[in-house]
Amino acid sequence: MHIDLNSDLGESFGRWELGDDEALLSVVTSANVACGFHAGDPLVLRRVCEQAARRGVVIGAQVGYRDLVGFGRRFIEVSPDELVNDVIYQIGALDALARVAGERVRYVKPHGALYNAIVHHEDQARAVVEAVRLYDPDLAVLGLPGSLWLTLAEKAGLRVVREAFADRAYTPEGTLVPRRHPGAVLHSPEEIAERCLRIANGDPIPAIDGTPIRITADSLCVHGDTPDAVRVAEQVAQRLSNAGINLKAFAHHR
Amino acid sequence: MHIDLNSDLGESFGRWELGDDEALLSVVTSANVACGFHAGDPLVLRRVCEQAARRGVVIGAQVGYRDLVGFGRRFIEVSPDELVNDVIYQIGALDALARVAGERVRYVKPHGALYNAIVHHEDQARAVVEAVRLYDPDLAVLGLPGSLWLTLAEKAGLRVVREAFADRAYTPEGTLVPRRHPGAVLHSPEEIAERCLRIANGDPIPAIDGTPIRITADSLCVHGDTPDAVRVAEQVAQRLSNAGINLKAFAHHR
Amino acid sequence: MHIDLNSDLGESFGRWELGDDEALLSVVTSANVACGFHAGDPLVLRRVCEQAARRGVVIGAQVGYRDLVGFGRRFIEVSPDELVNDVIYQIGALDALARVAGERVRYVKPHGALYNAIVHHEDQARAVVEAVRLYDPDLAVLGLPGSLWLTLAEKAGLRVVREAFADRAYTPEGTLVPRRHPGAVLHSPEEIAERCLRIANGDPIPAIDGTPIRITADSLCVHGDTPDAVRVAEQVAQRLSNAGINLKAFAHHR
Amino acid sequence: MHIDLNSDLGESFGRWELGDDEALLSVVTSANVACGFHAGDPLVLRRVCEQAARRGVVIGAQVGYRDLVGFGRRFIEVSPDELVNDVIYQIGALDALARVAGERVRYVKPHGALYNAIVHHEDQARAVVEAVRLYDPDLAVLGLPGSLWLTLAEKAGLRVVREAFADRAYTPEGTLVPRRHPGAVLHSPEEIAERCLRIANGDPIPAIDGTPIRITADSLCVHGDTPDAVRVAEQVAQRLSNAGINLKAFAHHR
Repeated sequence: MHIDLNSDLGESFGRWELGDDEALLSVVTSANVACGFHAGDPLVLRRVCEQAARRGVVIGAQVGYRDLVGFGRRFIEVSPDELVNDVIYQIGALDALARVAGERVRYVKPHGALYNAIVHHEDQARAVVEAVRLYDPDLAVLGLPGSLWLTLAEKAGLRVVREAFADRAYTPEGTLVPRRHPGAVLHSPEEIAERCLRIANGDPIPAIDGTPIRITADSLCVHGDTPDAVRVAEQVAQRLSNAGINLKAFAHHR
Repeated sequence: MHIDLNSDLGESFGRWELGDDEALLSVVTSANVACGFHAGDPLVLRRVCEQAARRGVVIGAQVGYRDLVGFGRRFIEVSPDELVNDVIYQIGALDALARVAGERVRYVKPHGALYNAIVHHEDQARAVVEAVRLYDPDLAVLGLPGSLWLTLAEKAGLRVVREAFADRAYTPEGTLVPRRHPGAVLHSPEEIAERCLRIANGDPIPAIDGTPIRITADSLCVHGDTPDAVRVAEQVAQRLSNAGINLKAFAHHR
Repeated sequence: MHIDLNSDLGESFGRWELGDDEALLSVVTSANVACGFHAGDPLVLRRVCEQAARRGVVIGAQVGYRDLVGFGRRFIEVSPDELVNDVIYQIGALDALARVAGERVRYVKPHGALYNAIVHHEDQARAVVEAVRLYDPDLAVLGLPGSLWLTLAEKAGLRVVREAFADRAYTPEGTLVPRRHPGAVLHSPEEIAERCLRIANGDPIPAIDGTPIRITADSLCVHGDTPDAVRVAEQVAQRLSNAGINLKAFAHHR
Repeated sequence: MHIDLNSDLGESFGRWELGDDEALLSVVTSANVACGFHAGDPLVLRRVCEQAARRGVVIGAQVGYRDLVGFGRRFIEVSPDELVNDVIYQIGALDALARVAGERVRYVKPHGALYNAIVHHEDQARAVVEAVRLYDPDLAVLGLPGSLWLTLAEKAGLRVVREAFADRAYTPEGTLVPRRHPGAVLHSPEEIAERCLRIANGDPIPAIDGTPIRITADSLCVHGDTPDAVRVAEQVAQRLSNAGINLKAFAHHR
């Protein structure tokens, strides 16, 4: 038995450091690397790509809205034409740095507000799917099970990978509880690891109101930008490993 | 007999339009397309790439400093590490849009202050050469004959293409008269066309002080962002054609 | 009888020129000057402020979303806390340049997508009102009659100025027909001037479906970024003047 | 006896946090607050201004080159015309937020590469002096003793305040040892505090080669963006206090 563990990386920018990329790369199997629009300058991205390549971690393009000050976390009413090309531009830029590092971008995971928007925003969801398809139809796409974006991606013939959020509370309907709600974000490494194990095993987890729900996931996302991110990731990996579940990237490395 | 005619394109940005890309693409044989750092948003770049692909114009990456407000025309003391990756990022981003348009980036021409800096600034010249070599050693590089950047590129095994500026005055030593000097920029389409013909034929042209100088060039650059850019380009093309000199890209299209 | 004529100015950015500020300033009585977030670099803004000061045109701050590539025309889900301070920052920056030019910012007019959002988006409308009130409660605010933003501004004790759009079609309900609809933007200078005269006189104008509607306005807005902007503005001014209606700023100059 | 203690603050940007502004404000007497061009978004700047106002710390504008990714630490060949207005824009923007917090900008301290450039770059030094003079000739300016910028500021009638860097090595000539040299930055809080005491007392300190040199300073700068910044600042304050030297701002608060 195996499952993928993914995390957002390459989110430093110039003088501003965020997350411990090197440490997380020693745990995760897939790295969602920023592409410069919401975070990540080219020097940072090159470094992360080289570290990922060295450690055999698969590189994905974490594309976002062009919004440094908002860290890509604010919805922007971008037109589909703009968005298609913003996404191609970002994938291409990161892929160039990944290739120089001896690797390649293997999948695409939208970031922040774009990730949330295309759960339901049809025009933007179509635009991201179109961008991936145009750039390279062999790229996989990573997203929320049941989201419009994954549905459209699947229809377009893209390989679809479903993820669960290890440190986020779910509604009884299986959607994420918005960040601003109390209890939306889990902090206990033990609790997070326990949930990961249940999801990996196909067992139900409690929704925020206690209702048991079942989340189907090919990949588990752990956040990389919190102070205890590395500790959480390690605990998740340990717990899964103890239960005989190996961490294994969903995409091929090299 | 033949020579290449190149021009800077894709320099609009969002609401701001600059140059008549479509009209220039009907004349030139090589398009130095901006890459988003000094000008050119992804939507504009995609459009230029598609128009170039349709017309059989070869696409080059016009990489620059990250400086929208300065249009890449102000020297920035970027470190070599930053510059290498800034350049890879830009080439990769444009190449992605070019590939989607059915074409590819075939050469690299630095823009504005970066172009001028690497005539002599060794660290930055090396960084740009390194970036091209790492991204794709089959890319040609376009630059000023005698510049440090072309010398280093040649040593690194890159294919080097020398260009002459049809609308700029030269010193008796064969370098460009800086823009701020009176007479630095020529405006008469007839005079510009005449100089182009002389350069293409290997005949001497008058330097700013009248001294005859000989400029060796594989490509002629006409500027794209002036009101009469299209008229100048057309006149140059006509004059060369009348003299039996064909416009032909130095790189292969598709 | 008199009315104000306002236009958006200072929307060039670095190498990119937009609109003929100098010519428009010879016609309008109020200048909505960009503040750098959607357009306008500090050098451009200083120049416009000096020209406005010389000609006795009143300066207003045209605050917008931080979105150069989108020209402030894309809705951004900015939080109220961010927006309050983004607006204060922009007004203060422009006011500094206006003061150096011997003038001051006298009013605030939100730009583009922000203008449209705060017709109904309560959190953002409150944030803009709060910013103006905190910066200087003596500033007037310019906006669409009936918009939530003007209603909240009035409640907060700000001086409210209502404007009509001379070159935009209206719905029978008196709201603007969105730009993307056919017929949304009028182009004939004669027709625009005729509508201005009717609005200034308090006479009804035809809505897009022909229904006569009455628009109450203290100021008429003419756009500054179209090729024939100056000709339209001049024609409007001439037509009003011929009818004995003087152009007069709603705010005091110096 | 008394001396001023200044530090760079407000250098966070959106999601990226840098420095512990609140803690440093409990120690320093003057806050060099970023203005958004090299760091500091409006929300961050407002918060720092409010905290400074509450604690009676004097606010200065730390103006810089427009270069977020380079954190203002890379020289940019800005023209004097651009620089004058970039600086006015930044001071005005910060002053607006300071006023809303019940305070005002009282002085100007250039940041990073601009600070270093105007030690000798005459055009840029003149431009910054001109900007301060135009915005408000009552503002003080903070800089390196002997720098061209302070000399020109003094000639222009501005109040000049000289600062010493508590954690930087000096050459025997009394200039700063460039950051890239080994030993350029001191880390021991004890050593830094000891040097501060000597400078405050007018006693010589050892230059990097041991030569005793005397630094005349009205203000001591401690860096705010290092992990132990707060501890260093506290130790400096304690040491000075123990020696009977009070920390006192050079400018008046409110």
